[in-house]
Amino acid sequence: MDLLEIRKELDILDREIVHLFEKRMGLVEDVARFKLDTGKAVLDSKREKEKLQVARSYVEDPKLQESITELFQEMMSMSRRKQIGMLLERGRGFSSGFQKLGCLPFSGKSLVYQGAEGAYSYLAGRIFFQKENMIACTHFQEVLSALEEGRADYAILPMENSTYGMVQDNFDLLAKHPKLYVVQEIEFPVSHCLATLPGESFSDIKRVYSHPQALSQCADFFQKHPEIQGIPSLNTAIAAKNLMETGEKGAGVLCSREAALEYGLLILEENLSKKENSTRFFILGKEAVFSKDAGKLSISFSLPHAVGSLYHILGNFLFNGLTLTMIQSRPVGDGEFSYRFYVDFLGNLEQKEVLNALSCLQEEGVDFRVLGNYPSKEFKR
Amino acid sequence: MDLLEIRKELDILDREIVHLFEKRMGLVEDVARFKLDTGKAVLDSKREKEKLQVARSYVEDPKLQESITELFQEMMSMSRRKQIGMLLERGRGFSSGFQKLGCLPFSGKSLVYQGAEGAYSYLAGRIFFQKENMIACTHFQEVLSALEEGRADYAILPMENSTYGMVQDNFDLLAKHPKLYVVQEIEFPVSHCLATLPGESFSDIKRVYSHPQALSQCADFFQKHPEIQGIPSLNTAIAAKNLMETGEKGAGVLCSREAALEYGLLILEENLSKKENSTRFFILGKEAVFSKDAGKLSISFSLPHAVGSLYHILGNFLFNGLTLTMIQSRPVGDGEFSYRFYVDFLGNLEQKEVLNALSCLQEEGVDFRVLGNYPSKEFKR
Repeated sequence: MDLLEIRKELDILDREIVHLFEKRMGLVEDVARFKLDTGKAVLDSKREKEKLQVARSYVEDPKLQESITELFQEMMSMSRRKQIGMLLERGRGFSSGFQKLGCLPFSGKSLVYQGAEGAYSYLAGRIFFQKENMIACTHFQEVLSALEEGRADYAILPMENSTYGMVQDNFDLLAKHPKLYVVQEIEFPVSHCLATLPGESFSDIKRVYSHPQALSQCADFFQKHPEIQGIPSLNTAIAAKNLMETGEKGAGVLCSREAALEYGLLILEENLSKKENSTRFFILGKEAVFSKDAGKLSISFSLPHAVGSLYHILGNFLFNGLTLTMIQSRPVGDGEFSYRFYVDFLGNLEQKEVLNALSCLQEEGVDFRVLGNYPSKEFKR
Repeated sequence: MDLLEIRKELDILDREIVHLFEKRMGLVEDVARFKLDTGKAVLDSKREKEKLQVARSYVEDPKLQESITELFQEMMSMSRRKQIGMLLERGRGFSSGFQKLGCLPFSGKSLVYQGAEGAYSYLAGRIFFQKENMIACTHFQEVLSALEEGRADYAILPMENSTYGMVQDNFDLLAKHPKLYVVQEIEFPVSHCLATLPGESFSDIKRVYSHPQALSQCADFFQKHPEIQGIPSLNTAIAAKNLMETGEKGAGVLCSREAALEYGLLILEENLSKKENSTRFFILGKEAVFSKDAGKLSISFSLPHAVGSLYHILGNFLFNGLTLTMIQSRPVGDGEFSYRFYVDFLGNLEQKEVLNALSCLQEEGVDFRVLGNYPSKEFKR
């Protein structure tokens, strides 16, 4: 056979495969309808496994057994999504437990943040909250405790920086607080200036204090000035406040322009970090709520140690037409190298594609959790 | 129709689908053989896309078009793996560019590390390298420069901790040094002690210096002793060395037992971090080499912004029967939230499954790189 003939035969075969597949999906619908009408459970993972065994037994060439398994896993995954869709249409299946609200009640409410006035968390929080309702804490852990214990209505946490990556500790904190929910995302530009006490000049500076991420974001500056030492502190604005209070000579800080001004420091240089540098903040609340303008979801799950489990999990997004915007993993913390995954994707809890994907994820993942469904606000300076 | 009848019909259908699929794989093999014999390129992504269009046009129910696309993508991905397998059998296709060596020549060679004697990098490095061949640096960046500029034969970097997660900066450093390769992995237990100057006692301690990861790993200790402040330093052993040199009163350090002893400090408490806590180190060299006992690969790639690209990438591991042991992502650093992925999996560059997966990854990923194929050594204390 030459290439043209083989291809002609392939086309005939493919047409037949499409036809059989359509027929199969119709039968799967019949099964689901029958089960729904007679009150039987629709999803049946035991039968799925048996079906895989049977399909393998049909193969003539033993080398193709793995491929057949792959093909049938895919077909059964599609069938499952179809069946879940039918369940959802009848008001059954997955319930997120989230309440729909008209809008998020930030007005007059309080927000707890880490740092001091002028910190990036503070500046991002001020987009939605009044100055007199901002509450400062020294550590991120205290921020979440303050929220949980009712000393604040909302909390703000930096989660990810476009240059530096995820704030690992804060993802771990989220995992430890299952009763807190993301209600708003803010993308806020980060731009550090070098500030010092009035009366000091650039040549006096020997030490520069700031948050480790800020020090790392200004690596170019430290490479240009090897005589200046970077010293980690808890927060950029706390570094600025401390410098004002201690009056330490020969010292500078990397902080926001606003923090430098707040604490009466002299700005020596601006825009020390990369131009395109922004941080994603989460505003967290205690209620599982979402609004109709919520366009993004965050979820987390662990995975059973089966080969391919992440692959099948991702298929639930892909084949529901959902767009992933982030995937990250963190060690579960059992001392083994096993992971919890964090996934963000676009959607709203009222979309049937979203509910379909979440239903499947709940079946397949361990410790599955919807962290929130929230609107996103990008702030430009 | 009742459930039994529908299922009987499904079984008949499935048998037919298996039969057609087997026939299809046979034809795909014929195409590949024809192309190989006539010297034509085997992989043809343009034709794959056309084929998808054609398959969609065969569907009667328009709601099933997405499912058919999914099914055919899967089948074509299987065909591609089959064709790549045939190419590899004829000695064509992917070449890793890695040389096979009998064993790794560590004896008599030098190793550069970050920290000071007694640092965990130092202790892990000493498993393979002699004391007199260890070279200390202050920053990780210097460690890699020293290797690249020939001031050392090998370098050691901590990459991931089982409690704290990936050492983000060191993954970014790897990305910046495309001519360095991982030649050995070491999993080394981390156990911090609290040490101070001889003559001091526990009640004197007000400040404790250590690496930020060590401070975070001993969070329980700081929670029990809120009067003690944790202060970040560059490295656990450097903190110990500094304390010995400055003689600062009221100060302690968190470091390895070995570091405390090395610098003549008094050990006040042991095993302050979680019991099961270990760090993965990479030994890096300048040659792209692997040995027959190399059982793990590290690769990195970015992904085109197409929905599902990560899904299809993962399929290459799954359907070659390869086990993923780690997947991590880091921002590419273009200021957008776009990512480079780091994946570890079990295998050796001589296995055809590994070469098959790498061939596909090279086709599908952007900036694809094999970081190394290396043996793993787990050290217990």
